[in-house]
Amino acid sequence: MEYYGGIEAGGTKFVCMVAGGPEDIRAEIRFPTTTPGETIGRAVAFFREQSRGHPLRAVGVGSFGPVDLDPLSPTYGYITSTPKPGWAQTGFAGRLEAALQVPVRFDTDVNAAALGEYACGAARGVDPFIYFTIGTGIGAGGIVNGAPMHGLLHPETGHIHIPHDRAADPFPGVCPYHGDCFEGLASGSALRERWGQPAETLPAGHPAWDLEAHYIALALVNLICSLSPRRIILGGGVMQRQELFPLVRQKVRQLLNGYILHPSLEAGIDQYIVPPALGNRSGCLGAIVLAQQN
Amino acid sequence: MEYYGGIEAGGTKFVCMVAGGPEDIRAEIRFPTTTPGETIGRAVAFFREQSRGHPLRAVGVGSFGPVDLDPLSPTYGYITSTPKPGWAQTGFAGRLEAALQVPVRFDTDVNAAALGEYACGAARGVDPFIYFTIGTGIGAGGIVNGAPMHGLLHPETGHIHIPHDRAADPFPGVCPYHGDCFEGLASGSALRERWGQPAETLPAGHPAWDLEAHYIALALVNLICSLSPRRIILGGGVMQRQELFPLVRQKVRQLLNGYILHPSLEAGIDQYIVPPALGNRSGCLGAIVLAQQN
Repeated sequence: MEYYGGIEAGGTKFVCMVAGGPEDIRAEIRFPTTTPGETIGRAVAFFREQSRGHPLRAVGVGSFGPVDLDPLSPTYGYITSTPKPGWAQTGFAGRLEAALQVPVRFDTDVNAAALGEYACGAARGVDPFIYFTIGTGIGAGGIVNGAPMHGLLHPETGHIHIPHDRAADPFPGVCPYHGDCFEGLASGSALRERWGQPAETLPAGHPAWDLEAHYIALALVNLICSLSPRRIILGGGVMQRQELFPLVRQKVRQLLNGYILHPSLEAGIDQYIVPPALGNRSGCLGAIVLAQQN
Repeated sequence: MEYYGGIEAGGTKFVCMVAGGPEDIRAEIRFPTTTPGETIGRAVAFFREQSRGHPLRAVGVGSFGPVDLDPLSPTYGYITSTPKPGWAQTGFAGRLEAALQVPVRFDTDVNAAALGEYACGAARGVDPFIYFTIGTGIGAGGIVNGAPMHGLLHPETGHIHIPHDRAADPFPGVCPYHGDCFEGLASGSALRERWGQPAETLPAGHPAWDLEAHYIALALVNLICSLSPRRIILGGGVMQRQELFPLVRQKVRQLLNGYILHPSLEAGIDQYIVPPALGNRSGCLGAIVLAQQN
């Protein structure tokens, strides 16, 4: 049996796992994200302890970002220009490799979550598909033609520009770079700022949810038109509100207005826009898959 | 030597070629798109005549759409719900296969153009990249992880929703499905309708060009954020106006506002947002490449 390590490195917590594969978890630990030294140190200590007796073959990391994924770059495997205090320009993959003496595969947190859902979750074998996380921030990843979405950098889909009717919603948005981009209008931070209370305390039926579903639907329609995914998974804290799913599906259909004709966007839409199947483990299980692909 | 056939099937004209490869053109013909029977008939007659002595190995088609690209669908290889009179629900690939007795590979006109530019044009070996055509209508195709962008259907990037400030631009848009989607605001048809004259007669320095560059830049930023392409090619009739390129590049940088830091979006932007290198042959040369991939 071969063992792999996986890290879901989030801005608020780290999840680390040792597993034979995404369906064979051997050990798991969760701890808060503090300083880079302390947090990466705890991950290293966990893997060292767990690998006694059965050394790890490789470690996969799905990290919050932005991250540098260009293998030719001197800062490959770094968390780069994050506003998170203490974490900007943090070498991550290299530090793990040096400490653990195993190959480390590095990707974004959302690409890792997408890979997890693709391997054994709600998008098993579905290509192309998109995974959105809508929480404090908004990000997306996905699988296209058999591999995660990489490019010049990596997707930063939270920052697409969508229509914003300031007469209906005068809120200027919270994105420090773009104001009312998608993340600026629809992230958990935007909800808290617009309504003066955290999203989780807004009651069902509050107008916040209809507006939120409208912005999410606009972003989804843009992805449907530009990438033509075969499925869209919506995860993240805000999407814990299950009542958002029917609202989003209905508004996606309204916005497409019959232009793209496919059963998945009509009778099949409940299976087209779906929650993740792996709950809060998509990212870490995807990191295990990443390690296996090494 | 093996020979291949290529068709760029446009809504106004067809281009057909016989070639040993994209850099070895043997014969080429252009004729207007009339009825399906007559137009496909002319293509068949051209290939029959050209293949005397050296039979074709395969034919590639890059077609206007929407088209059905699902090999499992009963209408695979059809032009489907096009508003073009006489062409809705037209079997195309199958008709060619039956008439010519060779395998036919079928894709969208923009994916074919992207494939041509990828094989021997302005995106040689660049992955991922996006090809936009901005003409009477707007479409996009591209290469991601080594293959053209397919999915539930195919990209319909002209129909993404972008911000539209109705105070600055009260024009409601021309898209019969969405009004002021990207195509509704920025296609050649939109330009003609908004300004009361065809785009090609609008003088340099006319406010039309600044507004046009703004909408194109919004769409590009959305693709940059969601797909992270390594290059963007802008082709099509409207982009014949070379003065659009510096305007679009400048507005893309303004809209990104320093969020995505990469040399290609700064000093290198003149090599990042570029015109096609194959002129009006991208689509047909891409169709030849498609045939070779058979």
